[in-house]
Amino acid sequence: MPSGLQALLGLFLLFAAAKIGEELFERLRQPALIGQILGGFLIGPSVLHWLKPSPNLDFMAEIGVMFLLFQTGLDTQPEEILEHGLMSFLVAVLGVLTPLALGWWFALAVGENPVTARFVGTLLTATSIGITARVLADFHASRTAFGRVILGAAVLDDILGLLALSTLTSFAGARPSLINMLLTIVFVSVFFVLVLVLRRTAWPRMNRRMSGWRARSPVWSFSLVLLLGFSVMSAYIGLAAVIGAFLAGIFLSESNEIGPLRQQAHAVGSFAVPFFLANIGLKLNTADLFSGRAMFLIAMITLIAIVSKLAACGLAALKLGRKDALRVGLGMIPRGEVGIVVADQSLRIPAIPNQYYSIGIAMAVLTSIIGPLLLRLVMRPPAAAASPVSAAAKPLSSACEPPGG
Amino acid sequence: MPSGLQALLGLFLLFAAAKIGEELFERLRQPALIGQILGGFLIGPSVLHWLKPSPNLDFMAEIGVMFLLFQTGLDTQPEEILEHGLMSFLVAVLGVLTPLALGWWFALAVGENPVTARFVGTLLTATSIGITARVLADFHASRTAFGRVILGAAVLDDILGLLALSTLTSFAGARPSLINMLLTIVFVSVFFVLVLVLRRTAWPRMNRRMSGWRARSPVWSFSLVLLLGFSVMSAYIGLAAVIGAFLAGIFLSESNEIGPLRQQAHAVGSFAVPFFLANIGLKLNTADLFSGRAMFLIAMITLIAIVSKLAACGLAALKLGRKDALRVGLGMIPRGEVGIVVADQSLRIPAIPNQYYSIGIAMAVLTSIIGPLLLRLVMRPPAAAASPVSAAAKPLSSACEPPGG
Repeated sequence: MPSGLQALLGLFLLFAAAKIGEELFERLRQPALIGQILGGFLIGPSVLHWLKPSPNLDFMAEIGVMFLLFQTGLDTQPEEILEHGLMSFLVAVLGVLTPLALGWWFALAVGENPVTARFVGTLLTATSIGITARVLADFHASRTAFGRVILGAAVLDDILGLLALSTLTSFAGARPSLINMLLTIVFVSVFFVLVLVLRRTAWPRMNRRMSGWRARSPVWSFSLVLLLGFSVMSAYIGLAAVIGAFLAGIFLSESNEIGPLRQQAHAVGSFAVPFFLANIGLKLNTADLFSGRAMFLIAMITLIAIVSKLAACGLAALKLGRKDALRVGLGMIPRGEVGIVVADQSLRIPAIPNQYYSIGIAMAVLTSIIGPLLLRLVMRPPAAAASPVSAAAKPLSSACEPPGG
Repeated sequence: MPSGLQALLGLFLLFAAAKIGEELFERLRQPALIGQILGGFLIGPSVLHWLKPSPNLDFMAEIGVMFLLFQTGLDTQPEEILEHGLMSFLVAVLGVLTPLALGWWFALAVGENPVTARFVGTLLTATSIGITARVLADFHASRTAFGRVILGAAVLDDILGLLALSTLTSFAGARPSLINMLLTIVFVSVFFVLVLVLRRTAWPRMNRRMSGWRARSPVWSFSLVLLLGFSVMSAYIGLAAVIGAFLAGIFLSESNEIGPLRQQAHAVGSFAVPFFLANIGLKLNTADLFSGRAMFLIAMITLIAIVSKLAACGLAALKLGRKDALRVGLGMIPRGEVGIVVADQSLRIPAIPNQYYSIGIAMAVLTSIIGPLLLRLVMRPPAAAASPVSAAAKPLSSACEPPGG
């Protein structure tokens, strides 16, 4: 029983720390997911020593990150990219390639091995849709031209970021040949395309037939089976399991009961995701953060993260005028969920020095705080009385709230 | 990665087996929780050998049983016992003491040690409210006099059964002195009474103040913290963690957002509970079930389970007339959730032979199938057109559906 009590106490402490951190950061108008990470960091070995990382907590964190990316997938509408046309596409692609290349080049320049260099590049690719969506909603700007460009680009961005992660994890051990990397990209692309096609063809028909199933909440049960099944398939073909979780979410986002489904996923997410985020903080190592070289690397990588997105996305959106192009660039800065997930995966790749886990998390935290801060500076204050347009923007913005928040 | 893949594959197989079992049993109009147990049993080492018990699966099962009893607590309205008056009370108390005493006596008579004897008694105490509620709802009988007596008694029954479990787990090692057992009962009773009082005094005030919290779904987040916190407290004072989970559910059943709360608990339950139930089946050992002595014990203990509830509860309800008294007696036969939880706890008590785990599960499965079968025989067929009374009975009956189903 003492070992059972220990495990239970660990779950309680980590969960409570995450939730208190979330509430505090919400009150400070800062991203909730950062509050949850800091909650775990505070009770962990670096500060209060109340709790140590353990296999049980890692296991719960695994479940948590699956639900985090499942929720991200559920909130993703790939059709939105088309809707906002060429500009979203351009912003996303330039905004992924520029930081990927710059990060990769920088890590090689400071003498890291090729796998680590690819990791640093991958780390910088994906914008956190949740954090910027929150700022846009605060300013009733979700339905403006630049708001739509940001949200559309961030969707494609997530997909491209997870594609980059796929090639990273599947060729972590060996020195990758170009052929093998291309093969993975083709493989993953086929998986993505298959999901995108089936969700509009086979799934709606299947979904309708489920009303005849007898078990309670059949669609939710099926969704959970699909989530676990896609995750297993991903892991089986050598990708991170979270890619499957994300694809399961995208697949199901076309359901005719998407409202209840999102609520159910949110109910489980509220339980499971805090374990992932707080565990991220628990594993943060102060020694890795506060050495001279680490601080240099964090400062440089964060700077590259900010400048590369700002320049690439701003340039791609220049047609909107200079002011709105600046807003697009600033809105794409925060690396939240996907950056944290990429950093977390690095712990499984022996070729990447452990230090880079903490550096990656620090970059994600810093960009998630700095991005919204800068964006708020160049936004108009919200209209005192909500206009009909801004009221109509509400449902979209709430659908885009950070799943972890 | 292979070990991660293994763990993930285990989760997927166990979950899918549980859900398929649930759906099949619903179609056969049999209790869904039995279908989930059989799903795990079929893919386990006794039959198909697809999956073996593992620490990760046990951990998920722990989370599952916490949510199972949390949901049971949420659906419990302790006030219902008062509402249905003395008869529910009498049915519950006699219906707990008779099988407890008979089971205890029987195990001693066949030569088992005192701890095992107390275990067999405890196993037989608690009726499964979900299974009978389902039958009553099918016959639109939830609001009849005998229906109310059954539902009221089953609530008290659960509480008494978990009290009995408390004394079992806290004195499993040593030969218990009468003083120590009385102390535990006093201790647990104080915990129960405190929860019952605070839920009507402090909680409603606190609940109202939560509307000012900023994090998403504050009441749900607080409920999860409370669930983990009460479970830790229970384990800390030497009780089974599930007792705390049950008390957390009872505490929160007085919330002003009880509807959403039940839905959120159900969403997590749909994910977590199948792991508990299917894992029960996975751990079932055919060798323990099919020896001559095991079959004798299963037959005798199941017989005692049926006869003791039928006689004690039937007699206590005799005032309703012989026909309704028979229905009350039959309605109290199924031992579902709580019986399975008690059997599961036995694996942690070294003094109890492992065989009794499988015997306990077999008894719970058999009574859960035989009870509803007999009850259906003595019920009137449902009215072709639902009367206003039976329509009014719907919300109650759906609130009482088995959380595992």
